[in-house]
Amino acid sequence: MKALILAGGSGTRFWPLSRKARPKQLLALEGERSLLQETVDRLQPLVAPADVWICTTEALAEAVREQLPEVPAGQVLAEPMGRNTCPAIGWAVGLMDAGTEPIAVLPADHRMADDAAFRSILGRAAQAVEEHDYVMTLGVIPRWPETGYGYLELGAELANGLRHVLRFVEKPGLAAAEAYLAGGRHLWNAGIFVFRGTTFLELLAKHQPELAAGLAEIADQPARAAEIYASLPAESIDVAIMEKLDDIATLPLDCGWSDLGSWEALHEILPKDEAGNALRGDALALDSANNLIVSEGGLVAVLGVSDLVVVRTGDTVVVLPKARSQEVRRLVHELAARQRGDLL
Amino acid sequence: MKALILAGGSGTRFWPLSRKARPKQLLALEGERSLLQETVDRLQPLVAPADVWICTTEALAEAVREQLPEVPAGQVLAEPMGRNTCPAIGWAVGLMDAGTEPIAVLPADHRMADDAAFRSILGRAAQAVEEHDYVMTLGVIPRWPETGYGYLELGAELANGLRHVLRFVEKPGLAAAEAYLAGGRHLWNAGIFVFRGTTFLELLAKHQPELAAGLAEIADQPARAAEIYASLPAESIDVAIMEKLDDIATLPLDCGWSDLGSWEALHEILPKDEAGNALRGDALALDSANNLIVSEGGLVAVLGVSDLVVVRTGDTVVVLPKARSQEVRRLVHELAARQRGDLL
Repeated sequence: MKALILAGGSGTRFWPLSRKARPKQLLALEGERSLLQETVDRLQPLVAPADVWICTTEALAEAVREQLPEVPAGQVLAEPMGRNTCPAIGWAVGLMDAGTEPIAVLPADHRMADDAAFRSILGRAAQAVEEHDYVMTLGVIPRWPETGYGYLELGAELANGLRHVLRFVEKPGLAAAEAYLAGGRHLWNAGIFVFRGTTFLELLAKHQPELAAGLAEIADQPARAAEIYASLPAESIDVAIMEKLDDIATLPLDCGWSDLGSWEALHEILPKDEAGNALRGDALALDSANNLIVSEGGLVAVLGVSDLVVVRTGDTVVVLPKARSQEVRRLVHELAARQRGDLL
Repeated sequence: MKALILAGGSGTRFWPLSRKARPKQLLALEGERSLLQETVDRLQPLVAPADVWICTTEALAEAVREQLPEVPAGQVLAEPMGRNTCPAIGWAVGLMDAGTEPIAVLPADHRMADDAAFRSILGRAAQAVEEHDYVMTLGVIPRWPETGYGYLELGAELANGLRHVLRFVEKPGLAAAEAYLAGGRHLWNAGIFVFRGTTFLELLAKHQPELAAGLAEIADQPARAAEIYASLPAESIDVAIMEKLDDIATLPLDCGWSDLGSWEALHEILPKDEAGNALRGDALALDSANNLIVSEGGLVAVLGVSDLVVVRTGDTVVVLPKARSQEVRRLVHELAARQRGDLL
């Protein structure tokens, strides 16, 4: 099987550690390896590096190649621009030329606690694709009533533990999320797919003929790639294809998946001292509890504070309550308004 | 008149901004000038720089001379080591050779809101010393029931608004401090003295004969200064001399005096935004109130926090509640224990 890792994302949730030129997937948030490197590592030995393809942006391609010397440089694809996941996957799958071989599509910035469990499920999904030509999506067994994720609603049981996916459910309200958690018939949509390349391209032609035509045009006239790419409909694979299919299959993942969507989520998965402080880099915490302290530069010393995020990079220090981690984007917007783009 | 500024102090209250090689008096905490420079500036035109003497340590003498090019280099005296204020003043007054001219002894690290008011009082004190040969100490009219300062208890009124000092009172408990504040018969001891040099040396010989003999020995054998200095009794001028005198006079100061004893005290005197945040250097505060943010390096951005001190220097970031400013010393002690003296 082959793997296609989507590594073009940008975002501000881990600012100031993440920057435009160094987004989340290129950061080593947990250990010494970046999330992208860990995504490739996690596939071994199921998918050899020679069978890994990366779809990223032109701005990040060089950094991606540096982080992944084991992946052939030509398989690090640089999109002319970001147009959401469906054009990216369609374009990359066309270039991969995988035939009927299963392709796993994976985000580059997620975390699994149990890589072996993940590989086992991914291997079973690939087998189901080979045997039955399913389009598979892997869903995560919910651990709390999350309102920030989409869900998969489960239908009938298929062979070998597979389940039919009745429908994709958009981000629910809290009451619905609690019902999903209690009911046992929903999974978190983790954005992980497995399918035959040929099957995907057929579905693309059927459900997104305009996009498929545009990608064919790019293949014919590579010099006009940027111009044509800019005109493609910018839709997610979920909306553009998956939600239109009646016969998607899934396997539930139970491997400590996290999308590491905030500083708070990072605090949850890092090792902590007896007072609940997670310390990365040169950090000292006295009389302090449940803080996340990350330093890329010199010492960060705190005393008498709780439930804070304190992050220090070479040029920037950020302090905010852990529960308000998502609001770090407000600082980013304010700095952009103040013409401080050098810090973003 | 001449001035003797005591600039040998060290301390940790403004760590990490203050360092062993750059203690509080050398820091520009409020404006562009250091507290030491402001102390010299404040004396103008009452005491010309040519009549200013500085007593500091060997480690700090060069930095002091750099900050005060207007003070003759030979008048920046470097103590062989710190032995508290009485040996320092005795040694320096001997070298100043001021005769019967008034000498004002001033700490180097205090702040006055109204410099002109201070000069006016200091000028009147010098006049009283010239006319009556008083030993004067200037006391500050209390503004709150402070338990961290010593007090002067006032006695009879003398001529020209001067008051007799009945006694020096050690740091009181809260009930006593409240009574002092309400009673109007106590002043804060600000450590500011004015006397004739000759008078002081006579009092030293009378009340501290051992110290006076040691200083005479140093004058005779300068090569043995360090060795002899190390053997001098390390006492404060308050305890060694002032508390033994029956006829000290005072003038009350009402000029916005502060000893700037903590980050919290600095927050009080700095200009603040409408939410009460005092920002020094490159700082951004969103949805945040009553914080002190000081940056010597890059940006410090906070969101959703209140009543914190956040200080960034080139190598260190500190975060602690403003109300616990005094405990910054605990971080210093912890770092010393961890062999991180490079940060202290």
